[in-house]
Amino acid sequence: MDLQGTSFIGAGRGTGGAGEARAVNPVSGEKLDPAYHAEGEETVEAVCRLAAEAFEDYRGRSGREKATFLRSIADEIDAVEEEIVARMTVETALPEGRCRMEKGRTCFQLRLFADLLEEGSWVDARIDHADPGRAPVPKPDCRSMWRPVGPVVVFCASNFPLAYSVAGGDTASALAAGCPVIVKAHGSHPGTAEIVGAAVRAAVTRCGVPDGVFALLYGSGRTIGQALVRHPAVKAVGFTGSRAGGRALMDTAAARPEPIPVWAEMSAVNPVFVLPGALQERGEAIAEGFVGSLTLGVGQFCTNPGLLISGREGRSAFAERVASLAAGTAPATMLHKGIASAYHEAVDTMISKEGVESLARVEAEAGNNAGAVVLGTSADAFLADHSMADEMFGPATLMIEAGDEEAMLGVAESLEGQLTATVHATGEDREVFAKLIDVLERKAGRLIYNGYPTGVEVCHGMVHGGPVPATSDGGSTSVGPRSITRFTRLVCWQDFPDNLLPTELQEDNPLGISRIVDGARS
Amino acid sequence: MDLQGTSFIGAGRGTGGAGEARAVNPVSGEKLDPAYHAEGEETVEAVCRLAAEAFEDYRGRSGREKATFLRSIADEIDAVEEEIVARMTVETALPEGRCRMEKGRTCFQLRLFADLLEEGSWVDARIDHADPGRAPVPKPDCRSMWRPVGPVVVFCASNFPLAYSVAGGDTASALAAGCPVIVKAHGSHPGTAEIVGAAVRAAVTRCGVPDGVFALLYGSGRTIGQALVRHPAVKAVGFTGSRAGGRALMDTAAARPEPIPVWAEMSAVNPVFVLPGALQERGEAIAEGFVGSLTLGVGQFCTNPGLLISGREGRSAFAERVASLAAGTAPATMLHKGIASAYHEAVDTMISKEGVESLARVEAEAGNNAGAVVLGTSADAFLADHSMADEMFGPATLMIEAGDEEAMLGVAESLEGQLTATVHATGEDREVFAKLIDVLERKAGRLIYNGYPTGVEVCHGMVHGGPVPATSDGGSTSVGPRSITRFTRLVCWQDFPDNLLPTELQEDNPLGISRIVDGARS
Repeated sequence: MDLQGTSFIGAGRGTGGAGEARAVNPVSGEKLDPAYHAEGEETVEAVCRLAAEAFEDYRGRSGREKATFLRSIADEIDAVEEEIVARMTVETALPEGRCRMEKGRTCFQLRLFADLLEEGSWVDARIDHADPGRAPVPKPDCRSMWRPVGPVVVFCASNFPLAYSVAGGDTASALAAGCPVIVKAHGSHPGTAEIVGAAVRAAVTRCGVPDGVFALLYGSGRTIGQALVRHPAVKAVGFTGSRAGGRALMDTAAARPEPIPVWAEMSAVNPVFVLPGALQERGEAIAEGFVGSLTLGVGQFCTNPGLLISGREGRSAFAERVASLAAGTAPATMLHKGIASAYHEAVDTMISKEGVESLARVEAEAGNNAGAVVLGTSADAFLADHSMADEMFGPATLMIEAGDEEAMLGVAESLEGQLTATVHATGEDREVFAKLIDVLERKAGRLIYNGYPTGVEVCHGMVHGGPVPATSDGGSTSVGPRSITRFTRLVCWQDFPDNLLPTELQEDNPLGISRIVDGARS
Repeated sequence: MDLQGTSFIGAGRGTGGAGEARAVNPVSGEKLDPAYHAEGEETVEAVCRLAAEAFEDYRGRSGREKATFLRSIADEIDAVEEEIVARMTVETALPEGRCRMEKGRTCFQLRLFADLLEEGSWVDARIDHADPGRAPVPKPDCRSMWRPVGPVVVFCASNFPLAYSVAGGDTASALAAGCPVIVKAHGSHPGTAEIVGAAVRAAVTRCGVPDGVFALLYGSGRTIGQALVRHPAVKAVGFTGSRAGGRALMDTAAARPEPIPVWAEMSAVNPVFVLPGALQERGEAIAEGFVGSLTLGVGQFCTNPGLLISGREGRSAFAERVASLAAGTAPATMLHKGIASAYHEAVDTMISKEGVESLARVEAEAGNNAGAVVLGTSADAFLADHSMADEMFGPATLMIEAGDEEAMLGVAESLEGQLTATVHATGEDREVFAKLIDVLERKAGRLIYNGYPTGVEVCHGMVHGGPVPATSDGGSTSVGPRSITRFTRLVCWQDFPDNLLPTELQEDNPLGISRIVDGARS
């Protein structure tokens, strides 16, 4: 397709007017055509009105209709895979294989939500029958289920240009819930966004859902991003990005006359604890697995392991091995200049702290290149300086030597909320393992045994969430079918005639879904 | 029991130090013994530390253990019913029958959550099995479920001294989830709170759960209430009360370094729409039912119907009938002076608005007496002045004459979030009914057909929630089993050996609960 450099608004395209910007090839620094035309705040009003109107129609569509729409989006994306790969590799420096895999994940997610809608039980229908004869007052008939919350704003993630961007997990789950989606594009991959946006638009047309169900806006996060979150028609927000960015949106949303939820996935250092028995039994293998996880995708994953904690015994050989493996990795280009410079700055800041030593630092070449970094410190030093737990987004980790069990538990207790926490253990580590997991359960959304945090499986049991600052709300997950309820609210119908109830709540269960009837699952 | 006038903190009692206050008999104005000793901010630190310590133990208790504890609380409350009734009637002016019924509801809720825990499926366990042979990367084993979030602060409601206070719905659901609870007593019924607090304390001792699982604090909402919500150990808040009070807590919670959810149930006018067919067919019965709902409990329910909307035809006879029925009701004493004076002020303010006429106003006698009030206005006037939708907490309602269908839909569309929305209709009203319900579904947590909003059934299908300002979060309910998830977060265990998993997630399902395994409900 010919890229036009404009937003998708309703059935048409934006006209810009608030400046323009080009994507940059992070390898060469070359500016890419076309220029992308930023929309201004006046566009926000129009887009939100369209979304609110579309909601009136779209929320009434059946699960099957919405499923067909999601499948159609996936099909349209499949059809432009080559175009996506061609543009995405140039815009992001991500290798072709990763682009194809992420395209696969994106379409898999869309189809997983389609499956969920076709099966239908996700609405959590609950029915209590009336008892007109009950004393002292009759018992009413009460039936309730999840319903869509309204228009949702999704902010594209720079590190997942497909799977957490235009038609990524947030968009898929919001559309599945029955909510129109307004996507705010990320400036680092506007062309990839436009190709995917065109695919979604094609599916909108093909399936006959209202045009306002999808919009894709180019422009500044500080202006139109904030304006979208403030707009009264917007009822929820999905965001994947920095802690500062997420917090700014959370604060804006909380200050509204009608506060709305911001489902923000922000910041984590994903600690990996290696207990003594495990270190002794397979320190070499753990070092290898760890460095693989650390350097995967130039460390640009929210689940990248930024802390590696082990005991004193065997630590020096382990640290040497981790450092030497890391030192043997090649530097690579990061997603964009902003990420690369923030990475180098974060590493420099960490190295300058008292008690931190550099164990390995792969020299980056010019441009947006980054190499693996392994730093070391003691538990005492770490506990004395809270900022050592700050995220260095990229392939850098801080190894912490914890002299004894108490020090290791102290490190765990000191941590803020995390997406993941990993423990390597053997049967010999049983006692300290139990204590450690007890602490880590309070800290993380996902606990990993003898593994590594990168690689987030898209499945029913997954939790990609965790207490603040990992996400804005530890109760949620942004990956997997459960993420759909982020964009819903509960509604109860009391004493309604059967033919006026939503299909999911009708007495004879025409959809054959699993429901809770008079307290028991049917 | 001899009331001591002090807080419950750990295994002991508070010593106060931040002033003292006595409850007031709202009928006589007489001050009641004993004086209640307010705690200051320094107590907050100690109480939160105890709760955090207790969480470490309590969250590991099995569902059966927690169920036993909840049943024990209910038993202890049952055992002091006479003491509760004796004190509560004097503190609140609520009639004996209401006190007994609310005691019954409170114990019913505690036992309902005990049932839920014993059955066990509420944790929403989801299991995806590993596929080590999957290409290009092996699929991990992922298992997840709801886990308790941590210490919870519950603010007692003045209008439900039992069912939404010390051992009410918020406390019961938080304890069921596995969270310690710190209750902030309401100043209007401190003695009732102390009796119930002693019952909970007795159950804590009897069941051997940690002392820090429960605390009851007397003191100022502006000082210790705010300090509790700011404390880092506190992970969620339950509140039932005014919009201003709820919003103040929401703002404090949102401004924390780690924002936490405030589950606030605040303000609603619970519109009742009477469509033309229904008015013609049974206007008389609707008037009777409506006035009964309006004046129940001196209108001191969050579901009190504050708006009554009908068309022009037959409106004047209907309005006359509503007014005459309301005029025939007796004034009664409200819960406390603050509520009574706020009620009179709100009614006076509403009457003074342009286009509002008084149709009936039962004169209140001296003291904290309040009588039913019926006001009237037109849809045009209502739509021109947004403040006409403000809540008058008490037995007052505003009748709106909507000239045509469009006006009625306009009124519905203009409303803020509501706990309930009611429509009276017949088959003849089918078309306008469908349009109206479409609007109201976006506005309310519970839609009622041909009924009245007061009376909130405690059952699985109930939703007592609704968009802001009805509650702080339209996704939730504060009544019924679903309310438990407000105090939980999701945790995933990846690749854990079976014996290290929580019982709910172990392979052979020792608890026999309903789970989702590899995407299908088992």
